Order: sequence, then C-alpha cells, then structure tokens
Amino acid sequence: MSKPKILIQFDPDAHASVFDSVVAVDSGVDQLLLQPNVSERDVQGLVHGAMFTRGPEDLRSTALFFGGSNVERTEALVREAKKCFFGPMRVSLMSDPNGCNTTAAAAVLCAQQSIDLADKTITVLGVGPVGQRIVHLVTGPATEGLVRPRIRICSRTKEKAVKLCDELRESIPSEAELIPFQTGSAEETIAAIDGADVVFGAAAAGVELLVDGWMEGERPPAVAVDLNAVPPAGLHGVEVMDRGEKRKSTVCYGAIGVGGFKMKIHRRCIQMLFESNDQILEVEQVYAVGRKLMTD
Amino acid sequence: MSKPKILIQFDPDAHASVFDSVVAVDSGVDQLLLQPNVSERDVQGLVHGAMFTRGPEDLRSTALFFGGSNVERTEALVREAKKCFFGPMRVSLMSDPNGCNTTAAAAVLCAQQSIDLADKTITVLGVGPVGQRIVHLVTGPATEGLVRPRIRICSRTKEKAVKLCDELRESIPSEAELIPFQTGSAEETIAAIDGADVVFGAAAAGVELLVDGWMEGERPPAVAVDLNAVPPAGLHGVEVMDRGEKRKSTVCYGAIGVGGFKMKIHRRCIQMLFESNDQILEVEQVYAVGRKLMTD
Amino acid sequence: MSKPKILIQFDPDAHASVFDSVVAVDSGVDQLLLQPNVSERDVQGLVHGAMFTRGPEDLRSTALFFGGSNVERTEALVREAKKCFFGPMRVSLMSDPNGCNTTAAAAVLCAQQSIDLADKTITVLGVGPVGQRIVHLVTGPATEGLVRPRIRICSRTKEKAVKLCDELRESIPSEAELIPFQTGSAEETIAAIDGADVVFGAAAAGVELLVDGWMEGERPPAVAVDLNAVPPAGLHGVEVMDRGEKRKSTVCYGAIGVGGFKMKIHRRCIQMLFESNDQILEVEQVYAVGRKLMTD
Repeated sequence: MSKPKILIQFDPDAHASVFDSVVAVDSGVDQLLLQPNVSERDVQGLVHGAMFTRGPEDLRSTALFFGGSNVERTEALVREAKKCFFGPMRVSLMSDPNGCNTTAAAAVLCAQQSIDLADKTITVLGVGPVGQRIVHLVTGPATEGLVRPRIRICSRTKEKAVKLCDELRESIPSEAELIPFQTGSAEETIAAIDGADVVFGAAAAGVELLVDGWMEGERPPAVAVDLNAVPPAGLHGVEVMDRGEKRKSTVCYGAIGVGGFKMKIHRRCIQMLFESNDQILEVEQVYAVGRKLMTD
Repeated sequence: MSKPKILIQFDPDAHASVFDSVVAVDSGVDQLLLQPNVSERDVQGLVHGAMFTRGPEDLRSTALFFGGSNVERTEALVREAKKCFFGPMRVSLMSDPNGCNTTAAAAVLCAQQSIDLADKTITVLGVGPVGQRIVHLVTGPATEGLVRPRIRICSRTKEKAVKLCDELRESIPSEAELIPFQTGSAEETIAAIDGADVVFGAAAAGVELLVDGWMEGERPPAVAVDLNAVPPAGLHGVEVMDRGEKRKSTVCYGAIGVGGFKMKIHRRCIQMLFESNDQILEVEQVYAVGRKLMTD
Repeated sequence: MSKPKILIQFDPDAHASVFDSVVAVDSGVDQLLLQPNVSERDVQGLVHGAMFTRGPEDLRSTALFFGGSNVERTEALVREAKKCFFGPMRVSLMSDPNGCNTTAAAAVLCAQQSIDLADKTITVLGVGPVGQRIVHLVTGPATEGLVRPRIRICSRTKEKAVKLCDELRESIPSEAELIPFQTGSAEETIAAIDGADVVFGAAAAGVELLVDGWMEGERPPAVAVDLNAVPPAGLHGVEVMDRGEKRKSTVCYGAIGVGGFKMKIHRRCIQMLFESNDQILEVEQVYAVGRKLMTD
C-alpha cells in the first residue's frame, strides 16, 4: 500500500498561494504542508526533511511544489532544492511561480492547435516571465528544434527589446532568430505584428497592447493568444472565453479559454509528481505534459 | 461527486486559532488551509485564489473562515473579502473573531428559551464585541422588529455608556430604546438590573459584575446569562454549567452551559458554508442558524 | 466513532520541521496543524484551543508535538504547555526537538541489544542534547536504577567536562558516577575510551572523534554507537549502516542503523498520543516505548 501523498508547498511570499493549494487538493494530494516565507537558506533543512523520512520505495509519495508571486525568488529556491538531491535520494518537484510555466505551456499548445509553429514568424508582446517561457518553448520543444521560427521580441523601447534578445539568447538554441521590436506606440505595435503568423499577448493586466483595427490590417496574424483575463483585453477583439473562435481572419484564444487548459496541465503535473521520485517539472517538462494531454 | 471541502482560515494574529481549526475539522472540513498574519492588503490575492481555481459548480466546496483575537482587525479583513466577490463568482464565508458572533447568538437564544424578549427590559453588563452583538440581536432579529425591548447599556462611567449608546444607534433600528447606565460600583450595578427582565454578563474574564445578594433584591431579573467561564462568576451565584437552572427566582445560564450550544452553532455554520457558494455568515445569520437548531 | 486525530505541531523555528510533519502523517495523524514561530507567550492560547474544543471523551484525539532545531527553546514551550493542563482537562504531548529524545533512546537501546549496561563503564563523546539524554537514560531507566554504570563525560577542555558533570548531576540519580574527561586531542580521546565497555559518539556532524586505530587498542569498547550520519564517521571504522556488525572486537552501530529504529520509536510515540489524553512523552517515556518495541 502506498503512503499518503504529501506535497510541500514552498512559497517565498508571506502567505502560501491559495490558488496553488486548491489545485493541489484537487489533484489528489492527501497532505499539503504549507511553507510560506521561505528564503534560500531555509531550503536545505526543509528538503532534507522530505528526503530523509521515508524509505527509498516511498520517496515518490513525497513531493515539492514551488510557487510564489516573484518568479526569480522562487527559481532561486528551486536551485537550492536541486542541490540537495544525490543519487536515488531525491523527491520530485514542480516549479510554477505565478503560474508562469503552466500558462506559457498552455498558450503555446493552444496556438499549436491551429498552426504548425515551425518556420513561422511569431510576435511576443510583453516579455516578462510568461513571455520569456513562450520564447523558450517556441524555439525549442514546441518546434522540436527542426525548423526554428523567427521571434519578434517586443518592448516599449528598442534598448529594452535588444537587451531582452541578448538575455534570451543565452538560454535558447543558438540558431533561433530573435528580432527586437520597439512597441512604444499603437502604430509600432501594429507594425510588430505585420506579417507575423502568431501573436502572443503576455503583458501585465490592464494594458491594451493591440488597439481596435489590428484584425483589419493587410496581413493580420493567423492566430492570436491573449493571456490577459482582466478587461480591457490585451489584444482588442479577442474575447476572454475564446478557445479557437475565428474573428475576421484570426483564430483567437482568450485568457480563460487558455486558462482551463492551463489548469488541466497543472493538475496533471501534480499527479505525475507522485509517479516516481525523480521528476523535475519546469517549463519544458510542463509543456511535454500538456502536449501529451492534448494528443491523448 | 463533490470536491473536497476546503476551508481557508484567515487570522490576523501571528498564529491561526487552534480553537477555530479544531471546530473546522469536527465540522467535516476535508482540507484546512491556515493563513495566519493576514492583513488587509493580503486579502484580495488569497480570496482570488479561492475564487478562480474551481469551476462555478464546485465553488461551494471552497469557503473562508475569519477568526482572530481582535474583532476589529478581523472585520476589516471580512470587508476586504466581500469586495472581491462579483456576480456568481464568490465563495461562502463565516466571521467569528474571538467567537463573538456564535457566543452572542447562543447567549440570546438561551435567554429566549426562558422568556419572550419582546417588550422587555434587558441589561447588558460589559458592552464589548459580544455585548454589542447581543444588543444588535435583541433589537433586531431576536425580537423580529415587532415590539422592541428597552436595553440598558452599562459602562463604568456615564460618559462611556452614553458614547456606547450613540455608537450602537448607528447600526440598530432607530426605534430601539437604549438607556445608558453608569455601573462603576456594586450599588450602581445592582440599580442597573432593578426591574430588568434579563441580564447578560459579557465583561472581561475575572470581573465580578454582580456581587452576592443581587438575586435577593426586590425585582431581580427573571433570566441571567453569565458568559464568564473563569472564576469568579461574572454574575455571583450563576454556576458555570447552568443551563436553565432556577436559582432563587432567576433562571440561570452559565458560560459552559451556553458554550455547548455555541459550539453546535459554530459547527452547523461551518457545514452550511459548503451547501452553497453565496453565504455570508455574520452575527444575524449565525443567530438564524442557532434559532433553527433550537427549534428543529 | 472517534474524532479525526489532530496533531498540533509546535515549532519555535520560522518553519515547522518537514521531517516531523512527514513522520506525523506516516503515523496516522488525520489533520496536522502547523504552528511555526511559536514563542513561550503564544503557548497558552494555542493549548487552550486544543483543550477547550472537544468534549472530555474526545480529548484523546487531539495531541501536541513539540519540535525544533534548538532544544532549549522547545523545552521552554513544553514547560508552558504543561502549566495549562489541570485535572482531566489535558491533551497528550510529545517533545522531540531535533530528534534528541528518539535518537538518544534508540542509541541506548541499540547498545543494550549487545550488552547489559548495569555496572559498566560508558564513554560519551559529544555531550550536547543527545549526549545528555544518553547520560540520563544510562544512569536511570536503562539500568533500572539497580547497578549504575560509570559515565565518562568528555569535552574538549577539562573545565567544560567538569561543568557538564556538575550540570548533569542535578537531573540524574545522586549515586550515578560521572567522570570528566578532557578530549582535546586524538590521544586524549583514545584514553577516554580505554577500558570503557561502550562508547557513544554524539558530537556535531563532520567531526572525527576517534581516529583510525582505536579498534586496535589494548582494551577497545565492546560496543560502539556512532550517531553521525554525514561522512566522515564520528568513530572511524563504524559504517553508517552498521546495526550490530562486529568490527575487530567491537560491535558497531552506525547512524542509519540506529536511525531506522529511531523512526519506529517516533512513529509509535505519535500513535500512542492518541490512545489517551494524559500522556507526556519526553526522553524517559520515549525510551520506554522503544524498549517495548524491541521486546515485543
């Protein structure tokens, strides 16, 4: 008989994310141990407590989840946790601060339902944690590294767009083509999608990235994915519930349309944590889980 | 099949109340998420996490409990939580900081077992959070707004009693009659119950409000409810276990006698939270739950 | 039907020990309430919450566990908790900060599997919390107070060893013989085990207490128990997995060899907490639980 499934929820915030807790419960976790206020120096003691209590055959029934509102702080915790593992002495972990890994995976997979991303031109508006992970996926796993798409990296100033391209190049395949675009005005943003096949809107809530009229342009993207759930829409005209609706000539996905699938991916990832003790679910593995869910 | 019942325990104190946790477990909650140290600015993120994880049909399986030792701080959190809800996007909540709502409801319902409160004279000794809620109930729900009782609001100084009356008038029906009484001495306190039908003792633990002899007065109250569980009794002669015992000519209720019923009300309220997603259980609703328990 | 088993995990550290949480879950606890950051002034409110929620017949289904990395801070909490109980109004508790009680009990019981400790000479290297509890057990419960062993109390300086002896004498039977030994060098440490029957290595991780060659001395101890799990071994030549292996003329127990039994004791103690509401499991009671496990 297997042991109760224990998930330890690490969170650098002062309060462990309720969102992450509820998803964990709904994924079949038996015991959730909330650990808010975690800093890097706390990680080793807590992870050792997870590693050194159950026998090797039961380690797969203990797992770690890393959430939090600040992606960088959470990722620092994940790095510390990985250092604790050695040989078979390890427990599975998932990282999804602010939902960025599950959201990026769901966004890319939704787009892929409508279009083959290989050899395409893709515009990413709002290149924060989610946008950066979208770039990572469409230059790697999502296109299987065969024919790489061209990615337009957009920011309010040219300098910032160039800087983002430079930073992103360090973590993506060297053949990937990243093109900086300044999108400080509505006109510049329209220009950034001109001739693109797919546009992802991944900026902060409340920012209208593409204003009315973009769908009527000469060469509007075939697919638009808007990740902003709070009105106004990030991409004007995309409805929050859209999940493949065609509007003018563009197939649209809205934040809740993508969000339902994101939740499925999140739950499936939590379940997988308990299938073996050696899983590390970060953006690529989360994407793979989502792709399997979509094809099954 | 319904989802596991998740209760999120909000507490402004540094440690989530163990009392509230145990009652939650004994009320059938499946997963308790402790959130201590909550301040007003934390509420929105935590409540959104409760609202935006499960589908509309499952929202009734997530609920919020607000406890804590400082009634005002907790009520500020409740106000923030209510602001988060819109349309059908909401979860049920219960507020019971320091047990004040369940205690006031139980106290009034115990008194009502022995006497019809309509058109009666009621003395409230100790008008803190519990006492204020007793006033609220006996001027409203408990008398169904038909014939209002006269309430004697007692405090150590006349000034404070007048101030309390003024504050209470803002939240009770305008027809209610509140009469300030100074009860700085044993004699003044005896005078405050002279001719009253009911006396509630709701002051801080360890204060003997009514000294020996009050039961032998010319016109002692017909009913006395003492909410002080720690010796000495707040109302001399009322035993802590009393639940309707007649002593001299007064029917008595002691703190544990009332407390057993208070616990039943608390548990029933927690269960009700999971019957729909739109319940807000504050003092009036808690009283209604208790009345139903008493009449069933 | 009995109520769900609630264990309240008190911890003075900023994060409740994951180790203690996992053991609790694996011991059959239904609801674990984590209370980190507990200071002495917090204890009463939390313990009252545990005592005053369930009826007398159900109090045995609520229990307290006190853990933490700093033994003295935890023991201060335990003292406060005990003060809250009166008459039948109490809940069971276990104290095991840093695992010191279960570790000391397991270490002594392992040694006893190989040798009768009565009238023997015992060397304790590293007299911190675990070492002190070993001294307590071998001068009391483990030898049933009949024939007391001679204990060599070792420290880097003579002054410190003398001071430790003085402190220990306050809490052990007056007939017990404690002999201070200075073990500032490898030679002094070898001298401290010369002619001893048993040696316990209970110093901080990473310190090699006995260097290569001690097993080849003229009068090596018959039994060696090394509680250091991190290489190098505290007692050179004892393997971490040893559980009664004979090396040269010494029967050896390593940290993991002892640790497996320590875990069994810990789990059994947690289960016992829920068999009645009046148990206080500290080092002596934990030892008694272990002895019963060993003989059953």
